[in-house]
Amino acid sequence: MTRKYVYIFSDGKADGHGTMKDLLGGKGSGLAEMTNAGLPVPPGFTITTEACNEYYTSGQKLPNGLWEEVKAALEKVEASVGRKFGDSDNPLLVSVRSGAKFSMPGMMDTVLNLGLNEKTLKGLAAQSGNERFARDANRRFVQLFGKIVLDIPGEKFDHALEAKKNAVGATLDTDLTADHLAELNEQYLAIVRDETGRGFPSDPMEQLELAIRAVFQSWNGRRAVDYRRVNRIADDLGTAVNVQAMVFGNLGNDCGTGVAFTRDPSTGERRLYGEYLQNAQGEDVVAGIRTPKKIAQLQEEMPEVYAQFASVAERLEKHYRDVQDLEFTIEGGRLFMLQTRNAKRTGQAAVKVAVDMVSEGLIDRATALMRVEPDQLDQLLHQRIDPAAPVVVIARGLPASPGAATGQVVFDPDEAEQLHKDGKKVILVRVETSPEDYHGMVASEAILTARGGMTSHAAVVARGMGKCCVAGCSEITINYAEKRFVTKEGQTINDGDWITLDGSVGEVIKDQAPLIDPVLDDNFRTLMAWADEARTMKVRTNADTPADSQVAREFGAEGIGLCRTEHMFFEGTRIDAVREMIVAETLDERAKALAKIAPYQREDFIGIFRAMDGLPVTIRTLDPPLHEFLPHEQADIDALAEKMGIASPVLTAKVNALHEANPMLGHRGCRLGIVYPEITEMQARAIFEAAVQCTKDGVTVLPEIMIPLVSTVAELKLQEDVVRKVADEVMRETGVTVEYLVGTMIELPRAALTADRIAEVAEFFSFGTNDLTQTTFGLSRDDAGRFLPRYVEMKILPDDPFQVLDQEGVGKLVEMGVRLGRSTRSDLKVGICGEHGGEPSSVEFCHRTGLNYVSCSPYRVPIARLAAAQAAIADKEGQKASSGTA
Amino acid sequence: MTRKYVYIFSDGKADGHGTMKDLLGGKGSGLAEMTNAGLPVPPGFTITTEACNEYYTSGQKLPNGLWEEVKAALEKVEASVGRKFGDSDNPLLVSVRSGAKFSMPGMMDTVLNLGLNEKTLKGLAAQSGNERFARDANRRFVQLFGKIVLDIPGEKFDHALEAKKNAVGATLDTDLTADHLAELNEQYLAIVRDETGRGFPSDPMEQLELAIRAVFQSWNGRRAVDYRRVNRIADDLGTAVNVQAMVFGNLGNDCGTGVAFTRDPSTGERRLYGEYLQNAQGEDVVAGIRTPKKIAQLQEEMPEVYAQFASVAERLEKHYRDVQDLEFTIEGGRLFMLQTRNAKRTGQAAVKVAVDMVSEGLIDRATALMRVEPDQLDQLLHQRIDPAAPVVVIARGLPASPGAATGQVVFDPDEAEQLHKDGKKVILVRVETSPEDYHGMVASEAILTARGGMTSHAAVVARGMGKCCVAGCSEITINYAEKRFVTKEGQTINDGDWITLDGSVGEVIKDQAPLIDPVLDDNFRTLMAWADEARTMKVRTNADTPADSQVAREFGAEGIGLCRTEHMFFEGTRIDAVREMIVAETLDERAKALAKIAPYQREDFIGIFRAMDGLPVTIRTLDPPLHEFLPHEQADIDALAEKMGIASPVLTAKVNALHEANPMLGHRGCRLGIVYPEITEMQARAIFEAAVQCTKDGVTVLPEIMIPLVSTVAELKLQEDVVRKVADEVMRETGVTVEYLVGTMIELPRAALTADRIAEVAEFFSFGTNDLTQTTFGLSRDDAGRFLPRYVEMKILPDDPFQVLDQEGVGKLVEMGVRLGRSTRSDLKVGICGEHGGEPSSVEFCHRTGLNYVSCSPYRVPIARLAAAQAAIADKEGQKASSGTA
Repeated sequence: MTRKYVYIFSDGKADGHGTMKDLLGGKGSGLAEMTNAGLPVPPGFTITTEACNEYYTSGQKLPNGLWEEVKAALEKVEASVGRKFGDSDNPLLVSVRSGAKFSMPGMMDTVLNLGLNEKTLKGLAAQSGNERFARDANRRFVQLFGKIVLDIPGEKFDHALEAKKNAVGATLDTDLTADHLAELNEQYLAIVRDETGRGFPSDPMEQLELAIRAVFQSWNGRRAVDYRRVNRIADDLGTAVNVQAMVFGNLGNDCGTGVAFTRDPSTGERRLYGEYLQNAQGEDVVAGIRTPKKIAQLQEEMPEVYAQFASVAERLEKHYRDVQDLEFTIEGGRLFMLQTRNAKRTGQAAVKVAVDMVSEGLIDRATALMRVEPDQLDQLLHQRIDPAAPVVVIARGLPASPGAATGQVVFDPDEAEQLHKDGKKVILVRVETSPEDYHGMVASEAILTARGGMTSHAAVVARGMGKCCVAGCSEITINYAEKRFVTKEGQTINDGDWITLDGSVGEVIKDQAPLIDPVLDDNFRTLMAWADEARTMKVRTNADTPADSQVAREFGAEGIGLCRTEHMFFEGTRIDAVREMIVAETLDERAKALAKIAPYQREDFIGIFRAMDGLPVTIRTLDPPLHEFLPHEQADIDALAEKMGIASPVLTAKVNALHEANPMLGHRGCRLGIVYPEITEMQARAIFEAAVQCTKDGVTVLPEIMIPLVSTVAELKLQEDVVRKVADEVMRETGVTVEYLVGTMIELPRAALTADRIAEVAEFFSFGTNDLTQTTFGLSRDDAGRFLPRYVEMKILPDDPFQVLDQEGVGKLVEMGVRLGRSTRSDLKVGICGEHGGEPSSVEFCHRTGLNYVSCSPYRVPIARLAAAQAAIADKEGQKASSGTA
Repeated sequence: MTRKYVYIFSDGKADGHGTMKDLLGGKGSGLAEMTNAGLPVPPGFTITTEACNEYYTSGQKLPNGLWEEVKAALEKVEASVGRKFGDSDNPLLVSVRSGAKFSMPGMMDTVLNLGLNEKTLKGLAAQSGNERFARDANRRFVQLFGKIVLDIPGEKFDHALEAKKNAVGATLDTDLTADHLAELNEQYLAIVRDETGRGFPSDPMEQLELAIRAVFQSWNGRRAVDYRRVNRIADDLGTAVNVQAMVFGNLGNDCGTGVAFTRDPSTGERRLYGEYLQNAQGEDVVAGIRTPKKIAQLQEEMPEVYAQFASVAERLEKHYRDVQDLEFTIEGGRLFMLQTRNAKRTGQAAVKVAVDMVSEGLIDRATALMRVEPDQLDQLLHQRIDPAAPVVVIARGLPASPGAATGQVVFDPDEAEQLHKDGKKVILVRVETSPEDYHGMVASEAILTARGGMTSHAAVVARGMGKCCVAGCSEITINYAEKRFVTKEGQTINDGDWITLDGSVGEVIKDQAPLIDPVLDDNFRTLMAWADEARTMKVRTNADTPADSQVAREFGAEGIGLCRTEHMFFEGTRIDAVREMIVAETLDERAKALAKIAPYQREDFIGIFRAMDGLPVTIRTLDPPLHEFLPHEQADIDALAEKMGIASPVLTAKVNALHEANPMLGHRGCRLGIVYPEITEMQARAIFEAAVQCTKDGVTVLPEIMIPLVSTVAELKLQEDVVRKVADEVMRETGVTVEYLVGTMIELPRAALTADRIAEVAEFFSFGTNDLTQTTFGLSRDDAGRFLPRYVEMKILPDDPFQVLDQEGVGKLVEMGVRLGRSTRSDLKVGICGEHGGEPSSVEFCHRTGLNYVSCSPYRVPIARLAAAQAAIADKEGQKASSGTA
């Protein structure tokens, strides 16, 4: 069986149609669809993506039979337009364009006017009655073909053109006469000879073959590969090639070319939005050499063409039921459509269009929900840098907490606090932050650190506060003494200088960039309401304070999935008591210190329970190793020793004794609670006393106590015993009953592997996919910076597994954990509280795996709600599809 | 259905038999078996272990129906001996003994002469015609019962006895007259009243019930629980209770009691070995009050009884086909057997007995192999401390490398080298060792470190050299400046003092303890040969040097399962070139440094290939993070910088840049080879050039290149490409072909989870269960010391998972890895090279899981060979058993 490599569209009939994007690419399927719909489309044909793939698998040879099909298709096009390719009297010219399944802007290049040579040039001049036009067309063709197909640096041609214009005193390209252009063309041909060592190919068929190969070749060009990597597009899709009869927008003032959207892609407003150029070819619009006019002006200049275009645009939008991105050319007052595709749009526009189209009856709610990329909502929730503004990026770090902020650089947290009180906007810049810097972080617009990963103190605290943060920016060197930092490129930023941070991408920008405020309008609320109807998974939040809880609830969180009690330890003077507890040598001393911490914890829990009235709150018992609460530099240790009234060598010895080679795998999580059950007891008491207090006050409290870092059911059982014992005591003492659950984080491979055993005790599981990813990969998030970016670049890993859940490996453990856990306890409640809980593809995985909820930071809650809705809709559609085929 | 709680043995017939150890305990089943065999056994009955378990589950109540059964059984015994329990004229006395499935020496106590009170005492006196005997029996009874059943401190009775003896001028107990004993008994009864607030129970049935309860109670006594924990015996086995008619060894000079082994339990020599006491009760032998005589003397004193006993002993050994540990009593010239059980024995005896019994036709080879505990072989391979010698343990650390050694303490490696040259025996004591200490370690008898775990530099290097090492001994504080260390208890050991280390248990001993040399005799070789015939799994060794390889081959290693190339980096001046490579800023500089290392590596590989001529050698490419090769203390960094001729701040910056928060999860393993492929290239070139050289010299070389720390197949593929490219180059350059394999270590959960993908590239897997345990548990071996011992103590974990493979969790990943790997590549070669490869229960698991080989340190090779044989035999027997029932 021979494959069909070429799909013709011509004379109101096309071999392909709009659903064949995989084979014909976006552009090709659009042209086929428009042709079939009877719209005015210049005839042509599409070479399939399969041909491209075979080109690569066969060592860059055109597939057998392709050329015969191309010739046959070309004859059909010739017949349709009544011209002949390569004919000296009545020549057919074609455009050659790439067109992959996904649009990749700025990467695949287009060759226009292909088929010109000395002979056909004359034919074109005769045909058009315009020698200057023909010469200009030829000039453009040689220039584009030379650059794109023959790989000659574009500036060679640009320089020659500029030189010519200077020589003859021309300002615009259009000032050049036919003779000037003829002379210029000679220079162009000389450039080609110089650069390639051969003459310019004059055989139109050779031109066509070279152009087709160039399109195939560009699929693996550096820029295309990079774009696919960034946008996670598979390398084996291949690109199609569209060969289409030329129409000319530059044959006079009744000609023109333009691009337009059926709705405003920035705001979503329903009106034709776009621009056009009179008497111009497409590249002139793109190149920005001449300033195009707004599409509305076309109505005045060519009212009939405009009316026709508006009607075509409306038809196409209705046909595709989505905003269309159109390209058109007007030749002698006749409209030709060159492209239609679904338009890219901003988050705001995506939401508005989706909601509007439902009211217009164009799409249903499910479709509307599928139309918005969850990550786009981030634009609506945070300030962002005006994309139109030019900015100077001076350094790059980790996108540790999204949003953007501007402020004056300050290196000292106390100073930050003072300046903030004085009404200044500051950005705190530190090598890394520690609990002592907390007040300075609160006072700052944003935080920039030179060290530390996505889970560093700065990153975690900033995310909790919804504050922009760029962390681990190793490209800057901070000098506290001289109050300045220097970038890799040697730029110095001093105390008080303005900078802007973009925490969504991790950029440090010089000066004050203009910011755009977030928009949470009715459209957003409507869409979110639909999402909540559609989804089956609950969405909770990771929140450690009453304030965070409040914010998250406003964003639609249905409870807390992870409340990290240790973050409470850092606030204010509490850390003193915590340190006293750690340094304690006896159980008595430890108990005394714990008694000081207990009231703080109780008050925190009361605040959180109130904020989450009626919703479940999952509280994790102490997790980090104790040395995290102690200083490590000798000077800091000395200072603390003095403050605590103990000898410095004693404290130093304690710090050394607690030192761990691999703290991530050390004495933390439930291992602390097992060696020091009194810590768990204190925490449980604070939780239940708070719960009782709230219950008395009429607040509905649903605490879920979560034991971290469990690797065997015996650990969980021991900690569960402590919690239940304290719960019984508190309820007995107060006479108030509180319903509660005891469960565990599944964050170690062994916990997932033995989940059936663990579910004998656990009433719920919450997958801690941050740590689970670290242990499953044997990869420290703090240390991976040295090679993980390289890994993603080399495609060893498709994504950073700390951002996008690794479904093949870590996901297998999650599936196993859910399956085994429910085999023991069928009503086991299962959630996820790693960073992945707010990442759309991971949320989809969680839905598919049967999780009851995802939990994420407050500002990711809307994203997770939408992603969960999309997963539910896709699931339903998949079921429909499979039951349809059954 | 009512359960049967009581099993009678009487008059040549028993309810139970010898295979019912679970239900009747070792002693009870032995008594039943001997009774059935017609041997002279005093009649009695056994209360089952089930009764004990029900006693505990029902809140320490005797099970329903038990007492009725006891009474019925008692009547049978009465009938058999013609006496009556509690009868004042012709009383029956009984002994009450515990007897669990496994013998637990020194833990369960025995009550003799139970049934005595004022009335029956008179009957006993009349019956025996010996009032003194009766009074003595009563005195013993009250004393034992008071101590064991009534929980009265034994010294109360001892003091009264001593006081009495002093008062009447008696030297021996036997010097006391009947009257003295009567007076003493009054004092005993007063003690009981004082201590318990009640009189001594005079009702024999009450005495019996209290004694039975006391036996049950002792099952959960502190010592019993501790013993079970140490010896890994389950808590829910329970103990049986044996109630047996008394016979008296203390009725005169034609009486006696003794214990004997059918062969020498120290050497295995075939001769009756044991001791006895004339005119004594059992407790006298055990208590060591009188010095017993050698069993041989019985032949002279009571030739007929001896002959009978010898014949019984031989019959029992033949019957059980194993060395028996016997207890007997002679009453009036009549022999009574009180116990037979399989004898405990030393490693040397175990091997000799097993081999001898095969030549004697008693057992087959498979049985012989099952008779030796693999770990016992350790005694035959290393020097050990004479178990008879009294030693003073001054500190405890980790048993990092087995064996024992004595030497004079030295703190400096250079000094160690010098003293060694002077013919002194030294033990190197360091806080921790580093590559710079290597020459000092070579010169020392043993190594003691204060810090570091079982995989610390000291531990790994010592094991490789087969040198005794105690590591991580945090109980000592070392003062280098004053050349001494101080123990936790405040004992100071100075430079030059003699100490002894026991690396098998981790003990530091004061002074020179007498050592026993290892014995590798013909019996050992015979048994090993049988093991090799029986086993189906290969046994390889972990060896990094030609010398280690040679030793391992002599111990029977069938190849190398893990050759760690980085250990070669530490030797001599090589470390200089390695450090140069690390500090290199450019590829060129790095290549230059690598070129210096290459010849060393090649020479090492040549040596190893020669030592392993004809056997496979698995070579792992560089694994540890690069910072492990650099110093970390500022002074050391400064010194190195000067040596290398670079500025100290530059080197300091490099060290800091390489610092990792969690090096275990950091930039190591194949992650190094991917970022610096030139390192893998250099290693591959060294391997293949060595292989070609050896091939030319007629050595058969089978290299297997192993890529470490793979988490995804893409990593392996990249490294495989490098290796194969170099292999092709070297073979092309030299014209010599070398067969080789490329495979990977499976040491991360993700590798096991995606083993099907990884086997697309890997030709073999080797499970690195050290790291796999760390990541599966999220547990750093270096840091676990703070809580892991507590975990084992609290039974959260049954064993240290770094010593005994965690089959439930880590084992599940191993099984999954094997299954998935072979689903892709059915002939995938699979081995294990973690520490578990030499641990018997883990070896058994490996056999069951279908591994092709285990690999362990040279001195564990014989242990692994035997364990593999036992696994194969057990497997075969299991198959036989299941096909028998099918």
